[in-house]
Formats: sequence, structure tokens, C-alpha cells
Amino acid sequence: MAGADGGGRVASTGGLWLGLDLGGTEIKAALLDGAGGPAGQGRAATPRAGVAGVVTALGRLAETVAAGRELAGVGVAVPGVVEMDQGLVGFLPNVPGDWAGVPLAALLTEGLQAPCTLLNDGRAATYGELRLGAGRGCRHFVLMAVGTGIGGGVVVDGELLLGSGGHAGEVGHQVLELHGPRCACGGWGCAEALASGPALVAAARAAMAQGRPTALRAACAGDGGRITPSLVAEVAAAGDPLAGELLDSLAHRLGTAAGNLVLVLNPERVVIGGGLSLAGEPLLAGIRRTLGQRIGWYLRHAPVEVVAAQLGAAAGALGAAAWARRRLGTE
Amino acid sequence: MAGADGGGRVASTGGLWLGLDLGGTEIKAALLDGAGGPAGQGRAATPRAGVAGVVTALGRLAETVAAGRELAGVGVAVPGVVEMDQGLVGFLPNVPGDWAGVPLAALLTEGLQAPCTLLNDGRAATYGELRLGAGRGCRHFVLMAVGTGIGGGVVVDGELLLGSGGHAGEVGHQVLELHGPRCACGGWGCAEALASGPALVAAARAAMAQGRPTALRAACAGDGGRITPSLVAEVAAAGDPLAGELLDSLAHRLGTAAGNLVLVLNPERVVIGGGLSLAGEPLLAGIRRTLGQRIGWYLRHAPVEVVAAQLGAAAGALGAAAWARRRLGTE
Repeated sequence: MAGADGGGRVASTGGLWLGLDLGGTEIKAALLDGAGGPAGQGRAATPRAGVAGVVTALGRLAETVAAGRELAGVGVAVPGVVEMDQGLVGFLPNVPGDWAGVPLAALLTEGLQAPCTLLNDGRAATYGELRLGAGRGCRHFVLMAVGTGIGGGVVVDGELLLGSGGHAGEVGHQVLELHGPRCACGGWGCAEALASGPALVAAARAAMAQGRPTALRAACAGDGGRITPSLVAEVAAAGDPLAGELLDSLAHRLGTAAGNLVLVLNPERVVIGGGLSLAGEPLLAGIRRTLGQRIGWYLRHAPVEVVAAQLGAAAGALGAAAWARRRLGTE
Repeated sequence: MAGADGGGRVASTGGLWLGLDLGGTEIKAALLDGAGGPAGQGRAATPRAGVAGVVTALGRLAETVAAGRELAGVGVAVPGVVEMDQGLVGFLPNVPGDWAGVPLAALLTEGLQAPCTLLNDGRAATYGELRLGAGRGCRHFVLMAVGTGIGGGVVVDGELLLGSGGHAGEVGHQVLELHGPRCACGGWGCAEALASGPALVAAARAAMAQGRPTALRAACAGDGGRITPSLVAEVAAAGDPLAGELLDSLAHRLGTAAGNLVLVLNPERVVIGGGLSLAGEPLLAGIRRTLGQRIGWYLRHAPVEVVAAQLGAAAGALGAAAWARRRLGTE
């Protein structure tokens, strides 16, 4: 079920750079030409049949999107922990299969006859926004990608922050509540457990179950199972006080997490991406308000912009391609 | 009341680098020779009479410590927000006087006839540990200096992390409790409000007031006003269960704050400094335990050491001198 719309542009210098974004349900692909401009994209379903099936699907999508053109290199965005220097998958909880230690970079290099490098998906999206999106022109920024989980990354001095082993930028598992709810990571009180899409939906269901009056009830026909983050945002935008309160509370938590990052990193910009960022200006305004309330003393000297990401769901694949160009190329 | 013990060593290349660490009660000074080695130190009381008195005292201590030798440059560690590029003091809550906008670097440059640069005191201590202490040999580390407040700083790729305006590294005001206690910064739930010396003392007093049995009561002769962080640490080391519990709780909070930083920065080392670090191994062990409990999944791929700072109370002055050498010199 792979489809592709390879762009017609020809790379101005050398071959094309391919980015693959491995997600739990879908693989996305993006091509950049030698000058770093978008040159095509594609997508395919993530097979549920384990490592070999996924590797095959990644290779097939790559070939479909490349459509016979030469690949200078390939970047793969992986939704988990990777060992960048060795090209190994470390911890990959959301893709079926036994991934620990899989030499994914080598497998794809062999299959595609092009050098391949791995990157965490949040960092890939960050690099994508840096080169092609909301981070352009920034020397210091932070991305928080808020969806089913909270990923992201950090840019310092115009470069992706890697830290000592390439694992820096894990912004979603910072603790905001010492004794907060359990998180999928095994910890508790993490931003992801408190301020992701599922946390918003759970709060909406709980409020509805308590019988609080809200237009959400009609919007989901009384079925809490049909509440989604976008539904809460829509109902809030239409003026429902409860939904507005839920979104404000989410913004307060995200703003608190953003504030923690701002204090440590002094970025010019905080970029909010992921599915939840579709809630738009009300969410961004709530984050800005929280920053002002909590760290106004700091912001007077170290101002920061809070803006929406620009690349949407393509950020990871575009970023992985740009990263391959940066890391494997001569840029 | 200025005293000095200027070392007898002569700078091997050019003049001496002076560091001044402006504290709420005391000014400390340290000299480095042209090769970056310690060459003397001194201290004086911080005048309570406002800006002019403090500037005079800084200049006098500098002259006493330099003892007629040529100064290549001066670094000043300031316990607040500074505008590094302009050499201005921004926000300085703990030193009497109207400091906002004071051109401290220019005033000292004029008085001492040597170029002068300002740096936040937590960042100065971080730079000191990087060049002369527990951060030597590290390319990525974080300092948390835990005392009356919590300061610190971040080293990335062997350099002090400055961020877009020189304000990066503010590790003590990250929020650990969304609805936690008020903090001196104006925010609430900050690490500083939950895990500093005063927070430990307040918890000890509260437990004693509740009538809980503890050797602390005898150690302070029943007077909660006499409890200090070191007293709690001593009584805990002697085996008192309540004091041990208080120290464990402090370590859990500090470990949580450290974990947040580790996830974002992937450092090789977390260095614990400040007065509280005198609690030593029990505190460090508690921090390590918390890291393992909360982010074990991450540490398996990105291990981190937790160690004590090595420069003690001299870190700020030594770091300010080393920073002057880095920023104003040709190092």
C-alpha cells in the first residue's frame, strides 16, 4: 500500500537525500534535492509483522519515492531510543517487533545502496523545523511535539543538541508532578502523562462522567470513547466553558514544561508541534500566559517567542532527510 | 575587613586573571596565572550600604589580592541576572542596593584598569568545575549548586551553555510540582522551593512540631530555629530515621530535577555542589536511586555519573577568573 509523489525537480548537486519517518501506524518518506529543497514524498502502512517486515516496507517505500533516482543518503526517524553512532535501534516500544539491537542503518544501507543514519523522531522533527520550518533563522530553539506522546528536541547555536551520546532533547518525560500519574516510560508525573492528547481526553471523560454540563456531551453523542483532542479543541473554540477550561489546564501544563526548558536553554523560540498544536492560538496563548506567570522575572531579560510548528506531519521525514544531508553529506 | 593570601607564583604568560564572587554576605576573590593555575585568593564582607559601597569593596579586594601585580582581566560572578554583552546587572535580589541597570563591568574596568566581564554565579561555579574541578575532562555536564537557593549551569561540547542571551543554565527554578509552594522567584513549585537548604530546614521543623520522635530535637536543644541543613545531615548520618527520611526526600526531589536535566541534555556527569553537597554520599546515592527509578529506560542507553563538586565555596571566584581568561583572553 505504498504511494509516492516524487517531485520532478532534479538535484542540483549530487543525488537526493531521503528521509523515512517510522511511525507506529505509518511510514512517511520525504526527498530533498542536493540544495536541501523538498523534492517528493510518500507514505505506507507500517507492517504489524515484526522487524523484517518493517525493514522491507521501509526499503520498498524508499525505492518507490526515489523512483530510480540516485540516493546520496538516507535518514531514518525512529520513535524511540537509537544508538546513532552504531546505527542501532535501542528501545522502540511503539512498533511491533523485537527491535533492541537491530542494526537498522546497516540493513537499509545494504538494501538501498546508500549510506543511512538513524535519529530519534522528535529530534528529526526538530531538525526539520530548524532547516525548513518554524525554527528557520533561530540559533537556539526548542520543539515540543505534543500528540499521543510528547517528543521534541533542542537546537543550540544552530545545531541539533546531541549531548554525550546523541540522546539529548528528551523533553516529554520531564517531571512536572513529583507524585503524578504513571507514564508509559515507567516513570510518573512526566509531562507526557499530564499534557499529551490521551491526558486531555482522559480529563474530558472524567469531567463528563462527573456530570459537568458541557457541549462535549452532545458532540460525542454521550459516548466518552468518541472524545478526541481535536473534538475538545473544537468545542472549546465554539465557547464551551468546560472544554475551554480543559484546554487552559493543558496549556498551563505545557507552559510549565516549556518554562523549565526556557530557563535551562534560553532559546529564542519555543515551537509547539504535534497533533495538539492544531488547537492553535488558544493553546499558544495559554502557554505564553503560563510562562509570564511563572518566569516573568526571567523573560524580562531573556524574551522567548512561542509559535506553532510549520511542517505538520511531514516534519519527521523532512527532518530525517535534512539530517542525512547534514551528517552524511558535505553541507 | 578584607584579607588576602596572594600566591607567590608569577604568571607564565601575561598578567593574572582575577575572579570576584559577589555574595549576599561575602565577596570572594581568586587569582589564576596566565596558564590558568590558582595564584591566590581573598575575601571581604559585602557592604550593606548599596551599590557604591559594594563597587568600592570589590575594587579594594581586587587590589589587595592582586598586590600590585598586573591584571590581564577580571570576571565577576553575580548572584542574579546579568546582561553579559553589555556588562550590566539585571536583577539582583540578594545584595542590598538598587542594582537594575548598573554598568558593573564598566565601573570595575575603570577602577581596576583591566577589562572586566560579568557572569551569573551559578554559571561561574559551573565553569570553575569544568576547568579546575569535578567537570574536568567532561564535554557535557550539569552543575546543581544546592544551598540557600539552587543555582548551576550547563556545559555542552566543552563550553558553557549560554543560550541566545547568556541566560541559559537556570536549573533551580524548574517546576517539580504544578501546584507546589511559593518560590522566592515569584513562581511556585520550583526545585529551589522544594529542595534547597531552607526547604529541608522547614520540613525538619514541621516534623519536629508534629511531635515525631527524632534525635534532631536533642541536637537543636528543642529550638527549631537552630536547625540547619548540616545538622539534619549530621543527625541522619548518626542513624536518626526521621532525619534520614528528610534527607531521602530531599535527594528524591534533587534526583527528579537532575533527571529532567539529564533527559534534555544527555550529560556525562551531574555535579552536585553548594552547601547541601556536604551531606555527601547519602545524598548522592539518593539522587542516583531516583534517577534509576524514574529514567532507568533512558540511562540504559545514556548513562550518567552523579558526583560531588570539588571546588567548594571557591568555585564561583575560580570560575569567574577562568571565564575572564576564556572570554577576554586568547585562550
